[in-house]
Amino acid sequence: MRCDDAPRTSAWPRCVSAVVRASPWSSAGTENTRGWSRRMRHVLEVAQFDRRWIETELIPETQRMERAALVGTGEPLRGRKLAILLYQESLLTASSFAEAMESLGGRVRELRPSTLSPQAREQSVEDTVRILNAWHFDGLVIRAEQAGGAARAARVAAMPVFNAGEPEGEHPTQALLDLVTIVERRGPPDGLRVTLVGDTSFWRWPAMRSFVKLLALRYRGVRFHFVSPAVLKVTENIERAIGSDALQFDVGLDLRKVAADTDVLYFVAGQFSHFALQHLYGPTEGERCFTLTADVLAALPEDAVILHPLPAGPELPEEYLADPRVAVFRQAENGLYVRMALLRMFVDERPRSGRAEVG
Amino acid sequence: MRCDDAPRTSAWPRCVSAVVRASPWSSAGTENTRGWSRRMRHVLEVAQFDRRWIETELIPETQRMERAALVGTGEPLRGRKLAILLYQESLLTASSFAEAMESLGGRVRELRPSTLSPQAREQSVEDTVRILNAWHFDGLVIRAEQAGGAARAARVAAMPVFNAGEPEGEHPTQALLDLVTIVERRGPPDGLRVTLVGDTSFWRWPAMRSFVKLLALRYRGVRFHFVSPAVLKVTENIERAIGSDALQFDVGLDLRKVAADTDVLYFVAGQFSHFALQHLYGPTEGERCFTLTADVLAALPEDAVILHPLPAGPELPEEYLADPRVAVFRQAENGLYVRMALLRMFVDERPRSGRAEVG
Amino acid sequence: MRCDDAPRTSAWPRCVSAVVRASPWSSAGTENTRGWSRRMRHVLEVAQFDRRWIETELIPETQRMERAALVGTGEPLRGRKLAILLYQESLLTASSFAEAMESLGGRVRELRPSTLSPQAREQSVEDTVRILNAWHFDGLVIRAEQAGGAARAARVAAMPVFNAGEPEGEHPTQALLDLVTIVERRGPPDGLRVTLVGDTSFWRWPAMRSFVKLLALRYRGVRFHFVSPAVLKVTENIERAIGSDALQFDVGLDLRKVAADTDVLYFVAGQFSHFALQHLYGPTEGERCFTLTADVLAALPEDAVILHPLPAGPELPEEYLADPRVAVFRQAENGLYVRMALLRMFVDERPRSGRAEVG
Repeated sequence: MRCDDAPRTSAWPRCVSAVVRASPWSSAGTENTRGWSRRMRHVLEVAQFDRRWIETELIPETQRMERAALVGTGEPLRGRKLAILLYQESLLTASSFAEAMESLGGRVRELRPSTLSPQAREQSVEDTVRILNAWHFDGLVIRAEQAGGAARAARVAAMPVFNAGEPEGEHPTQALLDLVTIVERRGPPDGLRVTLVGDTSFWRWPAMRSFVKLLALRYRGVRFHFVSPAVLKVTENIERAIGSDALQFDVGLDLRKVAADTDVLYFVAGQFSHFALQHLYGPTEGERCFTLTADVLAALPEDAVILHPLPAGPELPEEYLADPRVAVFRQAENGLYVRMALLRMFVDERPRSGRAEVG
Repeated sequence: MRCDDAPRTSAWPRCVSAVVRASPWSSAGTENTRGWSRRMRHVLEVAQFDRRWIETELIPETQRMERAALVGTGEPLRGRKLAILLYQESLLTASSFAEAMESLGGRVRELRPSTLSPQAREQSVEDTVRILNAWHFDGLVIRAEQAGGAARAARVAAMPVFNAGEPEGEHPTQALLDLVTIVERRGPPDGLRVTLVGDTSFWRWPAMRSFVKLLALRYRGVRFHFVSPAVLKVTENIERAIGSDALQFDVGLDLRKVAADTDVLYFVAGQFSHFALQHLYGPTEGERCFTLTADVLAALPEDAVILHPLPAGPELPEEYLADPRVAVFRQAENGLYVRMALLRMFVDERPRSGRAEVG
Repeated sequence: MRCDDAPRTSAWPRCVSAVVRASPWSSAGTENTRGWSRRMRHVLEVAQFDRRWIETELIPETQRMERAALVGTGEPLRGRKLAILLYQESLLTASSFAEAMESLGGRVRELRPSTLSPQAREQSVEDTVRILNAWHFDGLVIRAEQAGGAARAARVAAMPVFNAGEPEGEHPTQALLDLVTIVERRGPPDGLRVTLVGDTSFWRWPAMRSFVKLLALRYRGVRFHFVSPAVLKVTENIERAIGSDALQFDVGLDLRKVAADTDVLYFVAGQFSHFALQHLYGPTEGERCFTLTADVLAALPEDAVILHPLPAGPELPEEYLADPRVAVFRQAENGLYVRMALLRMFVDERPRSGRAEVG
């Protein structure tokens, strides 16, 4: 099976030291001045994660969850239930959250307003969340129709809310699993050179937005190349969107020119067919400039990491999936473990909703 | 969390006295001349419920189920399986039945002919039920395409059938949860003044039809105001539809005129956007005459109960949800408990389908 | 309940003798020169099943599963998870696989690329399977968009793949349940006369293709009548499609003419409404020539077996379902047991995926 391209015993990063467990629902603070312990009841955007939490909480818990998936989780979330509320369809994110919950022993209920009558779709996000409160759900994964939907849900939710990606907004759990995959291969990404290829117009793709933000805000000296057809190039307000004036980036039109200067090659997912842009990446232009080719692989450093949030199109040809630098299915696997870890940390630690109201 | 608008320790009604458990599948009769114990294998329409059963069976079991939801159900339906057959989409009813079943330890299988090819949709309700019989399902929730579908299913079903609402037919479990919410706040609804607002044309909405029938047939001296735009006013055959010549009702065009004479204010669900009727309730007309406003709230008695089967539109503005008379999310919560109670009473009491055939 | 048309204690066939259990994942071979034990990791097409395996493995395990469904399975697949990947919708096949898995204690995850954006649908079958590998699924049921899809999945799958039917391809589990239902009534089908009615154009319907192949390849002296309107008659390359020059068949236009010469009457499922062909079977023509009528029932031998993969249309009138020769709902019931048996044999016997990688 050539898709499992990462050695299972890969050394985990040096950054992980002591394991300090802290419940996001406990009232005890930490010395961290960002104060995540109180405010971090939900997973809404990458700015809420600081480096210390990633390194001492998330990554160790993710490692624990990988072992648990292999030898048995003990089902710590038995009796808990997770709502997955999809205002837009999702294959991988929704499925991996559901798998994560069920493998921890919990239950899942998917609600798809996207399949309902116009009338039912009009019910506000807030009212839908209030009904889920009334039914005592222990967690809520939401893919909203537009940026801010998950935050609206969180304002009325009695349970932790997980943003599963929203157009022109964020996709924080995707960024965490991307980061974990990089750390697993290369250690903390300080100083790495990251090349993003595809439709880099930025305001559009939540996975890309969250990924760039997380690396730029939490790690030192990360440099970005944005490679795209001219009409899809990164927009100019990127520094404001990131919230950092110090963002180091340049813009290009040909992946081959920056491959040798790349530690992490990140394909912006599946966007090649969106908005009928496929002709921009036609067999001539696309293959030369924006896809994984033998030339690109030859130029890439030996320890580079190739990522893709999937689903992939022709930018990631079947014939190169066996290259050991291709980590895209390990990414998908880490997606399961990261989401298991988040559910463990955010759902398991909070009081049982029912009992809290009784006691 | 302002949505939980009912005090959790609200006194339950005086009507509940001794608890007499009787299985709808037992052959032992009761002294009740309506003979529900034999005939009540299914939940098809409100006329099948008599007051004694509601007060001595349904309500105590619903209260038990609320406690069970909070402290653990013991999973009495483990090993049982419920089919949910949706010829039309449903968000709240289907989800709350599924939640009810799973919280009792049972399994759920949703079948959506509505998403299938025309060919597969054409399979008769009867044949689909026969297949579910062959697979030994222990219960069937059905939302049919037209009135009578649940009854057709029940004629061939080897398991209890729950009518989940059908156009121009009934929605009996909705009526039961509406009633339970009223009883919880006000005791038995004898003599109450009930105002229904919205599209009251009656033949169309199963929730409204079942609600009016249940109150008119089973309680004494209930009076109805039907408030709607002129084109949506209640149709004239309402007494025949209800099956009672003695129905006390009047018809009006302005909620404000009857608010002071209202104990229960019931918004007919989400109908404001159906059939492109929204213009009839535009910001001018709708806001003045058919929606919850400060004027209406000022005129309503202090112990009034405001109900809405949800999903809600602009007729139920966000800013008034915190008013203690608004019981709409408690209604949704009771929906879970009532359906748990019905599953307990109808599914748990019957013999295990498989074993029965073996023994 | 007239739909359960087979006596529950029907004598099982003489062909079943000793029970020899062999794991398809074990490395120990059998004396069988077709060598299924090594190669049969997947269920892709009927040619992979030899008669010995059907009689000594599949049928005894199916009988065991029927008993298990009635008295409790012991949940041997607890902790296992099955992905059901639907590129086309399926009501009966997908639901019965899901029921089979859950009744054995396992979990199910349905993935419906058919409901997704064009972008997500474009992800290759192979990539989707690689993600399911990464999430450690223990089995995969796939209904592909075209012939060969299940085989493509199997080439990259780390788990057993079950072909759930593909256009112009095969539907092997349907053929197995059809066969089991015949064997239950008549013993091994050697020498039986089989009449197929409906759209017999053959290349189109995977259930029919697999059924004819299985009987023609594995049993002696089976003769076929194909009855259809002229435009839907069986195509000429049927012998090549079957892979047997010795296929005995004739073609006709009127069911009544061959009813007396029929042991197994098989209606090709629901095809009456496909491709707007309904007019070909109109009340006049269809009722006389291609549907189950009193005339046909009068002519059919007393021990004939009437099968239909369902869903059925007007070709199978409600009024004749009580005829004891109609076995269509027993077929659906056997579908559950056969799929339970296949999951037991293919999923349960293989090593736990996670542990295998750890150990």
